[in-house]
Amino acid sequence: MSSSSTAGQVIRCKAAVAWEAGKPLVMEEVEVAPPQAMEVRLKILFTSLCRSDICFWEAKGQTPLFPRIFGHEAGGIVESVGEGVTDLKPGDHVLPVFIGECKECRHCKSEESNMCDLLRPNTDRGVMLNDGKSRFSINGQPIYHFVGTSTFSEYTVVHVGCVAKINPAAPLDKVCVLSCGISTGLGAALNVAKPKAGSTVAVFGLGAVGLAAAEGARISGASRIIGIDLNAKRFDEAKKFGVTEFVNPKDHDKPVQEVLAEMTNGGVDRSIECTGSINAMISAFECVHDGWGVAVIVGIPNKDDAFKTHPMNILNERTIKGTFFGNYKPRSDLPSVVEKYMNKELELEKFITHEVSFSEINKAFEYMLRGDSLRCIIRMDA
Amino acid sequence: MSSSSTAGQVIRCKAAVAWEAGKPLVMEEVEVAPPQAMEVRLKILFTSLCRSDICFWEAKGQTPLFPRIFGHEAGGIVESVGEGVTDLKPGDHVLPVFIGECKECRHCKSEESNMCDLLRPNTDRGVMLNDGKSRFSINGQPIYHFVGTSTFSEYTVVHVGCVAKINPAAPLDKVCVLSCGISTGLGAALNVAKPKAGSTVAVFGLGAVGLAAAEGARISGASRIIGIDLNAKRFDEAKKFGVTEFVNPKDHDKPVQEVLAEMTNGGVDRSIECTGSINAMISAFECVHDGWGVAVIVGIPNKDDAFKTHPMNILNERTIKGTFFGNYKPRSDLPSVVEKYMNKELELEKFITHEVSFSEINKAFEYMLRGDSLRCIIRMDA
Ligand SMILES: NC(=O)c1ccc[n+]([C@@H]2O[C@H](COP(=O)([O-])OP(=O)(O)OC[C@H]3O[C@@H](n4cnc5c(N)ncnc54)[C@H](O)[C@@H]3O)[C@@H](O)[C@H]2O)c1
Ligand SMILES: NC(=O)c1ccc[n+]([C@@H]2O[C@H](COP(=O)([O-])OP(=O)(O)OC[C@H]3O[C@@H](n4cnc5c(N)ncnc54)[C@H](O)[C@@H]3O)[C@@H](O)[C@H]2O)c1
Ligand SMILES: [Zn+2]
Ligand SMILES: [Zn+2]
Ligand SMILES: [Zn+2]
Ligand SMILES: [Zn+2]
Repeated sequence: MSSSSTAGQVIRCKAAVAWEAGKPLVMEEVEVAPPQAMEVRLKILFTSLCRSDICFWEAKGQTPLFPRIFGHEAGGIVESVGEGVTDLKPGDHVLPVFIGECKECRHCKSEESNMCDLLRPNTDRGVMLNDGKSRFSINGQPIYHFVGTSTFSEYTVVHVGCVAKINPAAPLDKVCVLSCGISTGLGAALNVAKPKAGSTVAVFGLGAVGLAAAEGARISGASRIIGIDLNAKRFDEAKKFGVTEFVNPKDHDKPVQEVLAEMTNGGVDRSIECTGSINAMISAFECVHDGWGVAVIVGIPNKDDAFKTHPMNILNERTIKGTFFGNYKPRSDLPSVVEKYMNKELELEKFITHEVSFSEINKAFEYMLRGDSLRCIIRMDA
Repeated sequence: MSSSSTAGQVIRCKAAVAWEAGKPLVMEEVEVAPPQAMEVRLKILFTSLCRSDICFWEAKGQTPLFPRIFGHEAGGIVESVGEGVTDLKPGDHVLPVFIGECKECRHCKSEESNMCDLLRPNTDRGVMLNDGKSRFSINGQPIYHFVGTSTFSEYTVVHVGCVAKINPAAPLDKVCVLSCGISTGLGAALNVAKPKAGSTVAVFGLGAVGLAAAEGARISGASRIIGIDLNAKRFDEAKKFGVTEFVNPKDHDKPVQEVLAEMTNGGVDRSIECTGSINAMISAFECVHDGWGVAVIVGIPNKDDAFKTHPMNILNERTIKGTFFGNYKPRSDLPSVVEKYMNKELELEKFITHEVSFSEINKAFEYMLRGDSLRCIIRMDA
């Protein structure tokens, strides 16, 4: 269907619906309402699976909200735009992002923050801001959104502030992975940890986010990049990403922060936690060198986790900070990250280990749950 | 006695000895051994009392080590120098500091750290590095040192790395307070929190350290400086230090971080904790604005304290860091802080609320314990 024929109409299309926590997604025909004020409707061409989808689909340490359409790492084309949208038009190539940029609030105007007051990450909200309702339904039953993106659907409705317009020459089946994980890890290193040339960086978790952080550390000139993972299968792949040494906490009797301190004469210069495990967050903080060490938290914790450390670890001139989306502002900054790929400053192919058709989407979940995949591209047209 | 007559000799002089935790100090005649390699012996002229002395003298949440000579905020004159000391000579005006600077180690060479590998703060060590022994004794019984300074004595022996040589024109009865508390608070603001002009800063604890932090915030151009203390007596004095608003946590049913968030539309830009209370440390972190807020920990925690917060508070782009001595390097930086006083960029008189003779030193403890004093100068010659 052409954009002109569907604009303003309800679109019936395929979506992978999560009816219950942890149960395989079910391919359904859903109705997607037209975009309202400041919203755009996107045709998704490629999506991929990020650990955050798994986290809220399993809903173990998170608020369950079902039925829901997950997915937040994707590339697509604008199908139609709602009232008041002037920055985007049908046919634009875009990446939807789970964090938005209204360009008006204190965060959007600050150089330091990307936590937009209007469009900050909200994993507990399953509806659109404009009317507090979902744009998805099946026979009149609303299906909840996920982080304002819900890309496991052929069409989705997204706030204009959560859509980055990118170079139409960029291949969407590759740059779709920049819409969450890879930009997050890369930015956590380049924008937040900022390791100096010659320094030592520890990366906790060698999934796509962690390996993108390792890439960022390598680009920054770090000379030692120590990868830490509980899954030894990760270590072979990680060599392609500039990781120079590996530590599996399971191989040691003592806490991994002590192992790292011994390897590095007192601690690493920077650490970047990309696991979502509270133990890894604490280790990532405690393994940085006193005096100058900086730890960056990226993983999404469970609702009832507690970060606990002795205050002397802080007083001894260590720093800890967190980041969403690597501190990139999605609309202002993401187009230039896409250009890094276009200029061959950033390789994306090595992050893409699997590919499935939309109807096989549950395989993507299996690959990640088994720890086999970094990113699995889901082709919507297949 | 002249320096030439005492050099190389044991000096007998008065010292205030803490024989037991929490018990009044006792004026004793002590023997002070000559300085060994890389040590200097100082004649202390003025000392003052800092909360850290009280903390380790009470030894409630700290390792007890007695008998001990406390005191680490002072001004004096070099009496004699040990082997290998070339930077200092008898007669130099100096401030001893609890943190040292060897000028050789990775920390001393780093721009970011002042946690010298050799001379980092060590509150559990009661002896000198050179031979692992004390330089103080009474009838042959060793009396322990405190943080390498032990200024509650007419003469003391200090590692050369812990001695800042200052402008001899500077009045030691004023600039002695720069040897710990005031530099710590000032540097915590100027060097670590670095508030921007027009920003909002919360200061927890309005003792001398906190009020020096408030001064630093004012100098940086902060437009709102919110002082938080449990002792309402502090609020009047604090007005002289640029504090614009006051919050007493006791006046509220909800956690003070929530009160501050309401006062500031979501949180302060910077917070500086100068209490030593673990609850204040947690509040100081949780009261900073997400996206850009930075909390700085200055207070000395108890040994069994735990810093506990929800990891989402970190992930939401907040930063926490700690500092000793306001990140100043004592030998390299302290002389220029003294010059700030000489140039009238920094007022010290308003921090000095009391003055006693050495024989009345226990009164200084009472003033601080009652929350009456900021700094009480103890005159050694009186
Ligand atoms: N802050 C953000 O903006 C943001 C964005 C995207 C993803 N995330 C989060 O980043 C994390 C990583 O995402 P991903 O897609 O790369 O996930 P992934 O599952 O592919 O990789 C995570 C890796 O961490 C390892 N791991 C788990 N617990 C560990 C521990 N205690 N110690 C060491 N390694 C451990 C796993 O074996 C796995 O290899 C997730 O928590 C995800 O939710 C955050
Ligand atoms: N990091 C360093 O290098 C360094 C250097 C000097 C002092 N210190 C520490 O800084 C702290 C302050 O020193 P000071 O000499 O100004 O002490 P002080 O006793 O004069 O002042 C501390 C103030 O904190 C207030 N306070 C205590 N608990 C509080 C709470 N929960 N909430 C709000 N206010 C509270 C007290 O009422 C008091 O007014 C101490 O812990 C001291 O050991 C650290
Ligand atoms: Zn993601
Ligand atoms: Zn905004
Ligand atoms: Zn002190
Ligand atoms: Zn040093």
